[in-house]
Amino acid sequence: MAESSPVRFGILGCANIARKVSRAIALTPNATISAVGSRSIEKATAYAKENGYPSTTKIYGSYEAVLDDPEVDAVYVPLPTSLHVKWAVLAAQKKKHVLLEKPVALNVKELDVILEECESNGVQYMDATMWMHHPRTAKMKEFLSDSQRFGQLKSVHSTFAYLGDTEFLENNIRVKSDLDALGALGDAGWYSIRAILWTTDYELPKTVTALRDPEFNEAGVILSCGASLSWKDGRVATFYCSFLANMAMDIVASGSKGNLRVHDFVIPFKENVAPFYTVENSWFGELAKSIHPAPSEQQVNTDLPQEALMVAEFSNLVGSIKGEGSKPEKKWPTISRKTQLVVDAVKASIEKGFEPVEIIY
Amino acid sequence: MAESSPVRFGILGCANIARKVSRAIALTPNATISAVGSRSIEKATAYAKENGYPSTTKIYGSYEAVLDDPEVDAVYVPLPTSLHVKWAVLAAQKKKHVLLEKPVALNVKELDVILEECESNGVQYMDATMWMHHPRTAKMKEFLSDSQRFGQLKSVHSTFAYLGDTEFLENNIRVKSDLDALGALGDAGWYSIRAILWTTDYELPKTVTALRDPEFNEAGVILSCGASLSWKDGRVATFYCSFLANMAMDIVASGSKGNLRVHDFVIPFKENVAPFYTVENSWFGELAKSIHPAPSEQQVNTDLPQEALMVAEFSNLVGSIKGEGSKPEKKWPTISRKTQLVVDAVKASIEKGFEPVEIIY
Repeated sequence: MAESSPVRFGILGCANIARKVSRAIALTPNATISAVGSRSIEKATAYAKENGYPSTTKIYGSYEAVLDDPEVDAVYVPLPTSLHVKWAVLAAQKKKHVLLEKPVALNVKELDVILEECESNGVQYMDATMWMHHPRTAKMKEFLSDSQRFGQLKSVHSTFAYLGDTEFLENNIRVKSDLDALGALGDAGWYSIRAILWTTDYELPKTVTALRDPEFNEAGVILSCGASLSWKDGRVATFYCSFLANMAMDIVASGSKGNLRVHDFVIPFKENVAPFYTVENSWFGELAKSIHPAPSEQQVNTDLPQEALMVAEFSNLVGSIKGEGSKPEKKWPTISRKTQLVVDAVKASIEKGFEPVEIIY
Repeated sequence: MAESSPVRFGILGCANIARKVSRAIALTPNATISAVGSRSIEKATAYAKENGYPSTTKIYGSYEAVLDDPEVDAVYVPLPTSLHVKWAVLAAQKKKHVLLEKPVALNVKELDVILEECESNGVQYMDATMWMHHPRTAKMKEFLSDSQRFGQLKSVHSTFAYLGDTEFLENNIRVKSDLDALGALGDAGWYSIRAILWTTDYELPKTVTALRDPEFNEAGVILSCGASLSWKDGRVATFYCSFLANMAMDIVASGSKGNLRVHDFVIPFKENVAPFYTVENSWFGELAKSIHPAPSEQQVNTDLPQEALMVAEFSNLVGSIKGEGSKPEKKWPTISRKTQLVVDAVKASIEKGFEPVEIIY
């Protein structure tokens, strides 16, 4: 029964974020770490030890070696964005399923190369947007989809920011033009854009207009920016992303009948329980002296952290392909590509002096 | 001691909102209702009775008669916006202090006529933006001004929306082009714009750009809209206002060190205690599996509702002018005019096809 054997992951590189995903793989019943590769075998060896990799893990001094290992089913790719197209394409060609860190590519043209290669090789593609897999996300979606409680979406605002210190702002790959040229837009804006598309059931906006006066570092990498999105039916969305503001991870959605608010959508305050806030049919009290009701808190428990649920979902899909000959699930490449299209539109709007950019799908 | 005798209010018209302010005057030690005028004396008589006005209240069949009454010190003007310039100017000329409902004018040109008349007649002007007077507002401002806790303002988003029913959307003065031509922008957007300016210590933005595709009624009155504001130093603000979405009254402000959130800033959920939420120095937990701290709730009690505190503040100023020969306080006309400038810029941007509009002060 091939579908019952765990999916064997190869990890490309020793990124910090891979520590979290490595732990997630260890926590996930249907996944296991099979190999790790780094340009330095010493680094890979130390990394495997530090992160408690199984003793059976194969340690390689190159990414290629991981891709050539027949005992690797899938790769997790946390490399700098500029390297994604090369390594994700090569992985797909070697028939490895691809769990790709975000931002997934520098632009949709690059992403399309990756997605086409994954499709033609019959491998599953998924971006590593962890919050999509938290059970809270499904619960919030239930509320947003409830025509009686939330009604029709009218407006949504999202913020994802965190404050980079001097070390981060000078040396982190996220602010290096040759490694992660999208800066805060790719790293933080990616989540807010995904959140907005998630509220619209992935219906792309007609127009994207960057907010004026983003902040850049000396190399021209975005440190803070934002945009407004509009759908031609009165629905609007705005977002702000930044490496220069205290951490905020907000979605505030207004429907015709209710409101949804969440303040830790990317990473919950707590690992095992996550809150969100809903309110419905709000109105003025007598003489408009008060309004009611106040929003109520909903708590959603989870046994496994969201990153482990992501690994589990990805591994389920890989298992079905391996074991049952299923086709890859198209939802994940589709929403990844839509997110990238909006990222690209924000960037284009900034480059065009904050002109509106139409999204062509 | 003239300053210890209560300020005697005349009420112009029998608007619904005046019921709330009438109660506020009754609750305020240094204010009293002296007169009410309506185009129909029967209506004014019934209104005075329904609202428990003192038996000494003079009932008039015209607004002029209220302004001509020497025992009226100040007027509260809750008339439709299109009538403000006429009646506020006349009131000032009759040396009555002016508490003016918002939106205060159809445009800054009209407002300037009012403000100049108030200034040249030495009367106090204040717009009836009640939340400015809640002690919560001062507490929130303390947080925003704290360079250690909040740091430097980076981004702020505000929403004020409520859902008009069919009756409202067809007949309310707020959607009538001849009465309140600014629609949701004047009625709801006013508050969000004020909130944004409040977070910037009333520093006007450099540029205002309306969000694309506002909603209008058949008469061309705005039912929903929004805008982005930018300050040339990376600070950005966005807002959404609407008669077509469930009630939301949000300010979400991101500083370099902390965040402020409030969800009932215009009218608190409860009259005697109002919450807001702060968080400081947020960061990732180990392996970025969580973030901390979670925001904490602050509660601010008030003995008097915010509208009574507004009446008290206005009456204090009027009392000082009457009793001590003080000059009118300039803060209130100044922030009213700045709010109107941004309202005008949003409207101009909509009319110019969502082009950015520079604010000239």
